[in-house]
Amino acid sequence: MKQSRQRSDCPISSALDIFGDKWSLLVMRDLLFRNKVHYRDFLASEEGIATNILADRLAKLEQAGLIERTDDDRRSGKQAYSATAKGADLIPLLLQMMLWSAEHNPQTAAPGALITELKTDLGKAAQAIRQQGGIQAFLASL
Amino acid sequence: MKQSRQRSDCPISSALDIFGDKWSLLVMRDLLFRNKVHYRDFLASEEGIATNILADRLAKLEQAGLIERTDDDRRSGKQAYSATAKGADLIPLLLQMMLWSAEHNPQTAAPGALITELKTDLGKAAQAIRQQGGIQAFLASL
Repeated sequence: MKQSRQRSDCPISSALDIFGDKWSLLVMRDLLFRNKVHYRDFLASEEGIATNILADRLAKLEQAGLIERTDDDRRSGKQAYSATAKGADLIPLLLQMMLWSAEHNPQTAAPGALITELKTDLGKAAQAIRQQGGIQAFLASL
Repeated sequence: MKQSRQRSDCPISSALDIFGDKWSLLVMRDLLFRNKVHYRDFLASEEGIATNILADRLAKLEQAGLIERTDDDRRSGKQAYSATAKGADLIPLLLQMMLWSAEHNPQTAAPGALITELKTDLGKAAQAIRQQGGIQAFLASL
């Protein structure tokens, strides 16, 4: 696992030291918005992450304190992942990313009801998504 | 220049297709928050970007419509870069990243006065930073 050094004390740079790649934030999306918890669930996401990249990103995210791992079935040894508070604090950032894409990348499919909520009060939506454990539950509650 | 294909229609994934790396958003930071406009100014930032990476990222950001280029001195041929509206719409995302680092990466140095403003009303701060052309001007106006 390649360690990332801290390039500067700029807060943007040090955040990118942790998750500045094409995959880390997709794993966080799966955990925070889609209730995915198992390795094979992340692997099954539509972007088709390779298993070695997934293993690397999970290890890095755990080391950075954004996710934690538990043995949820001791017999099968299958591990479950969950976001820490530090990881869940990325929800507003991920929602800003969705809002930006909804406005500027017309090929993307963000639910219209969600975008409306984000435009109205992103902070409030972030809190509700966190409490309700994902975007589907949040949309169902509107 | 390696083209990035759109991996899925997820808005988070398609945003990461464009700027999911360790450098692209640092160039946007320099343009949007620090009033940098020339190639050599980006090169001089404290993270020490390599010249081939900088050239690649500038070309990609231009192709994605986040920045544009002008010859600002026809005699020297020196080019100036500026953010488009699409690029400037990344300001709230970058501010969320700063806020997250200020809370979770204690080694980073974000100005306390800025973090206070971001916690109070990030959207308002984003608008002011955009209008005033950078973080220094915004902080001076408080």
